Amino acid sequence: MASRRQALLLSSSNCHGYNLLEFAKAEISSFLQRNNVKDLIFIPYAQNDFDGYTTKIKNVIDQWGFTVTGLHTYPKPETAISESKAIFIGGGNTFLLLKRLYKNNLVQLMKSKIDDGSLIYIGSSAGTNVATKSIHTTNDMPIIYPPSFEAIGIVPFNINPHYIDKVENEEHKGETRDQRIAEYLEMQHAAPVLGLKEGAILHVDGSKLILKGVNGAVLFSRSQKKSEYNVGADLSFLLNEI
Amino acid sequence: MASRRQALLLSSSNCHGYNLLEFAKAEISSFLQRNNVKDLIFIPYAQNDFDGYTTKIKNVIDQWGFTVTGLHTYPKPETAISESKAIFIGGGNTFLLLKRLYKNNLVQLMKSKIDDGSLIYIGSSAGTNVATKSIHTTNDMPIIYPPSFEAIGIVPFNINPHYIDKVENEEHKGETRDQRIAEYLEMQHAAPVLGLKEGAILHVDGSKLILKGVNGAVLFSRSQKKSEYNVGADLSFLLNEI
Repeated sequence: MASRRQALLLSSSNCHGYNLLEFAKAEISSFLQRNNVKDLIFIPYAQNDFDGYTTKIKNVIDQWGFTVTGLHTYPKPETAISESKAIFIGGGNTFLLLKRLYKNNLVQLMKSKIDDGSLIYIGSSAGTNVATKSIHTTNDMPIIYPPSFEAIGIVPFNINPHYIDKVENEEHKGETRDQRIAEYLEMQHAAPVLGLKEGAILHVDGSKLILKGVNGAVLFSRSQKKSEYNVGADLSFLLNEI
Repeated sequence: MASRRQALLLSSSNCHGYNLLEFAKAEISSFLQRNNVKDLIFIPYAQNDFDGYTTKIKNVIDQWGFTVTGLHTYPKPETAISESKAIFIGGGNTFLLLKRLYKNNLVQLMKSKIDDGSLIYIGSSAGTNVATKSIHTTNDMPIIYPPSFEAIGIVPFNINPHYIDKVENEEHKGETRDQRIAEYLEMQHAAPVLGLKEGAILHVDGSKLILKGVNGAVLFSRSQKKSEYNVGADLSFLLNEI
């Protein structure tokens, strides 16, 4: 059966020239409304200050007419997710986030619920990385060892959030973002990598994938040079399993 | 018994204003001479073109009066390392490197031989990361899943190579290097992190640790703000097990 997945994947929560999440306000609001959702569970696992982080997000999204609660305030995370209709996973460290999702047995649970259409997903930065096939193309430091790099797999490719194609400076000899992504693509079974510029949003709607937000994306694959996509582009071809 | 370790840990092989490895020529040459070494095994595992990478390094170091051979040219890597007196592990991707070291059963073998003084170690970039306690503070993308983030552990702390304290640009909202290191330091049991600027070399000599090369380092720890160290600094206190 075709997946009934519904997801919004943001490159980041911050975008130059906007307040926190402001660039995504219209998309998030209409996404929640179309899915008849008023209540949203926020998952602050990518950072350590669960209360502080949840409050920061709640202060923004509650003003739009929704009600945000932190997953950490429920006695059992598994039960809370089982009973919820919508989640938002925020950014921070991708390794820490994925480790905590596995520890709380949430990875497979989320995948099943998203596939059958009973849970809708919003992710930002690290929360977008874990929504993909794997976290192989995160920018984050591997500060903790997760049981796997495989992730929730709402989409069958990888994402590089906060994508930027500039080098740090001309004298620095560290690798550029594009070199790092090219290294990944040399690996066996590497999936295509979509670099989401800050301000870009991917809207996953069953078998449709549309690029939204205020900034575009760059696709890297083994067989082709990188290709640029602008806001509005139809990227549904990326949902075909490789 | 005190470790008889002998190692040179380079932040990188390239440094602005120098040809490949040129900034480290005097240190590497005298290190090998003091240890009566003429032959050096180069380990190209952090990259995929073993022949090409080895040739690049050999072309430089052989001119200094030594003989470099690639580990991949020996029938059994374990036997080759058992019988060698000196190795140089080059840069590339830290995850790929560590995965291949584990796959070839070299991590524990190297550690034992280095501790008892029968093997001396030179590392650069990824080759420096795997020489430390763990690879938790590499800058590289996690392009492959290694069986552990624990590494050879010649020194009991972590290193961030290619250390730079500039932000990518002022409009970019991705995390800075310092923020990433700070996230690591929030983890339980986090070791101190020494950020090695490009051109910095750590000389490990038993219980002595001296900062050499042409550029300094920055130390990050849980208890203190970051502190700068210049070339020539005695960092032996970092060798005390935490």
